[in-house]
Amino acid sequence: MSEQIDTREGWLSDEDIATVRARLPIVYVEAIPVRINQAGEVIQIGLLLRAMPDGTISRAIVSGRVMWGERVREALVRHIEKDLGSLALPKIPPSPTPFTIAEYFPEPERSGFHDPRQHAVSLVYLVPVEGICEPSQESLEITWITPAEADTAEVKAEMTSGQDRLLRLALAHAGCLP
Amino acid sequence: MSEQIDTREGWLSDEDIATVRARLPIVYVEAIPVRINQAGEVIQIGLLLRAMPDGTISRAIVSGRVMWGERVREALVRHIEKDLGSLALPKIPPSPTPFTIAEYFPEPERSGFHDPRQHAVSLVYLVPVEGICEPSQESLEITWITPAEADTAEVKAEMTSGQDRLLRLALAHAGCLP
Amino acid sequence: MSEQIDTREGWLSDEDIATVRARLPIVYVEAIPVRINQAGEVIQIGLLLRAMPDGTISRAIVSGRVMWGERVREALVRHIEKDLGSLALPKIPPSPTPFTIAEYFPEPERSGFHDPRQHAVSLVYLVPVEGICEPSQESLEITWITPAEADTAEVKAEMTSGQDRLLRLALAHAGCLP
Amino acid sequence: MSEQIDTREGWLSDEDIATVRARLPIVYVEAIPVRINQAGEVIQIGLLLRAMPDGTISRAIVSGRVMWGERVREALVRHIEKDLGSLALPKIPPSPTPFTIAEYFPEPERSGFHDPRQHAVSLVYLVPVEGICEPSQESLEITWITPAEADTAEVKAEMTSGQDRLLRLALAHAGCLP
Repeated sequence: MSEQIDTREGWLSDEDIATVRARLPIVYVEAIPVRINQAGEVIQIGLLLRAMPDGTISRAIVSGRVMWGERVREALVRHIEKDLGSLALPKIPPSPTPFTIAEYFPEPERSGFHDPRQHAVSLVYLVPVEGICEPSQESLEITWITPAEADTAEVKAEMTSGQDRLLRLALAHAGCLP
Repeated sequence: MSEQIDTREGWLSDEDIATVRARLPIVYVEAIPVRINQAGEVIQIGLLLRAMPDGTISRAIVSGRVMWGERVREALVRHIEKDLGSLALPKIPPSPTPFTIAEYFPEPERSGFHDPRQHAVSLVYLVPVEGICEPSQESLEITWITPAEADTAEVKAEMTSGQDRLLRLALAHAGCLP
Repeated sequence: MSEQIDTREGWLSDEDIATVRARLPIVYVEAIPVRINQAGEVIQIGLLLRAMPDGTISRAIVSGRVMWGERVREALVRHIEKDLGSLALPKIPPSPTPFTIAEYFPEPERSGFHDPRQHAVSLVYLVPVEGICEPSQESLEITWITPAEADTAEVKAEMTSGQDRLLRLALAHAGCLP
Repeated sequence: MSEQIDTREGWLSDEDIATVRARLPIVYVEAIPVRINQAGEVIQIGLLLRAMPDGTISRAIVSGRVMWGERVREALVRHIEKDLGSLALPKIPPSPTPFTIAEYFPEPERSGFHDPRQHAVSLVYLVPVEGICEPSQESLEITWITPAEADTAEVKAEMTSGQDRLLRLALAHAGCLP
C-alpha cells in the first residue's frame, strides 16, 4: 500500500500526511485480479511482487488510497491501471459493495490486517481482468496462480500484512476456496 | 419463464411435469442483462419482449429452469444464450451468490412474484453483456433502457409477474436506483 | 439432509420422490448456527451430530428441503427449530439473499458438495442463535466450536458431503476465517 | 452526520479538522435500524429527526465517523447507542460487509449523496434492533414507519442528503422494496 503516486496539486505534504495518519482512518481500495472462464469461474489469481509498507518484498494484491473527490470506482480503475498496466482491461463489478472490508492497524494483532504506517479501512473487490497485465510503476512482477495454489502454506509465506487472508476470503466469496 | 427448450432425453413428460409442479418448488435462474462503462457503472438494462406464463406479451428478463445435473453457472450461460443469442458475450460474475432470490407462487399476493404454473425459487443475477444481443427463439425483441427509465410507471406497466420489482432490486444492488 | 419430517398431506410418496429426484434439482436451505457477541463477531459455531445421506454419523449443519408453497424464510425457521429445538431463538437475517449457494450432486467431484440421493441446490445462511439449543428429532448432539477450531483438519475429518467447506465459506463471509 | 461527540483526547482541533476535510475522504458508518419479525422480515424502519449538515431539521438514519483505532463494528455500536440510546439492543450483523456504500460529496450532483462539509465514504448496514429506542443526545425524535411508507414522496420530502435513497436501497437489500 504505497501512496507516492497518489499526489495531486493541493495534496498533503509529507509532514501533513504523517499528522493525518496519526489521527484519522484512511480510505483504501484493494482489488484481487482474477482470470475467469466463460461460466464465470475463477481460473487464476494475479499476485504482484512489490515493496510493502512493512519493508519486505512480498506478493501482494492491488491496493491504494482513495483521493479527495474521487469515486471509489475511479480509484479502483486508477490503481489497477497503476499496478497492472493500461492494457489489463479490468471488468469493474456493477455493484459498489465490496465483497469484504479489511481494517489495517499499526498493531498486527488488532484485526489480523497490518500496516505499520496507519489505520486504513479498505474496500476489497474481486476484479476479473481480460487483457494483458504488465508490472508497471511499483510492481516488480505479476504471477498467476490457481485457487488451489492460493490456499497453500507457500503462498502464505510470501505474503504479509494479512493479504494472504484476503486471498482466502476472495476465494470463499467466489465459491472456490478448497 | 418457459421450459420447452429445456428438454433433454430422459426429461419429464408433459404429464410428469404437471405432477411435479404441483408438489415441489422448481429451481430457476434469472439474469438482468446490463451494459456497463469502464468504471462498472450500469448504463443500460436489456429487456426482452416475450410471451409470459400469465398469457401476456410483456417486457421480461432472462429466465429459465436449472436442469438436473446442471451447474447454476451453466444454466445462466445457457438461458442468456437462448434469449440474447450466441454473440452476447455475457460476463458471468465470479461469485455464485445471486444478488437476490425471487420466490414465485401461483397466488399473486404470496410474495409479489407470480407464476400461475408453479412455485419457483429463482436465483437472480446481474450480468454485464459486451457483445451483440439479438432476440432468439422465444424473445420477440430486445430493448435497452436507462436506469432512470427502468424506475418509471411506464416500464412497470409493461412488465408482469413482479419482474418490474426485480429490476428495481437490481438497480439498488448496483447503487443506481434513482 | 433428511426429509422424513418434511411430509405433508398430499406430499410425494416414496416412489414419487425417487422419480422426481432422478429428474429435477431439489431446493434446500441450510443454516450455520452461530453465537455472536454484542459487536456481531462470531464467537462460536454450532455443529450437529447426525446420520448423513452418505450413511455416516457426522458433524453437520442445519439442512432441509423447501416444501411446495413454503417461503424460504419459513423453511429456515422450520429446519432450525427441527434441529436445534424450539427455544433456540434464531435471528433470521433481514436479507433473503444467502451468503453462498451449495450445489450437491450424486458425483462427489462435480462441485465438491455431495449427496448420493439427488441434485440439490441449497441456499446457505449464517444464523445467529440466542437461546437454548437442544438436539431434537434427528440430531444426536450439538457441539459449539470456535472459528479457529472450525478451520482444522480435525473438524474436516468429522464432516462429510463438503459441509466442512461450507463452514469455511461462512467464516470467510463473517471475516473470521483464520 | 455530526461529529461533536466523537472527540477523544488527542483528537483533531476544529482547525485541523477543517484542513483534513479539504484533503481526505473521511470514513463513516451508517445504520438503518429495523424491527424484524420471527422470520426475519422487516416490519418497521426507524428514522431519527435531527439537525443535518445542510442546516435542515430532517428525518435521518444513524450516522457517524469511524475514529482512529476503532473497528468498524465498534463504531456501529457506538453510533447506534448515541442515537437510539443504550437500551436499543442492536443486532450487529456477523458479516463486516456493508449492504452498500454511500459516497457523500460537497457537490450534490456528484453521486446523489450530499454533505456540504466533506467527502465521506460511508459503509451502510441494516441493523435489527430489539430493545427500547429513545432519542438521545442529538436526535429529537424516533419514528417507526413501514416499508411501504418508506417508499413514498412524503418520506422523501422529509429526508435530505440522499438518505431517502439509502432507505430504498436498504429495502431492496431486504427484498421488501415495494
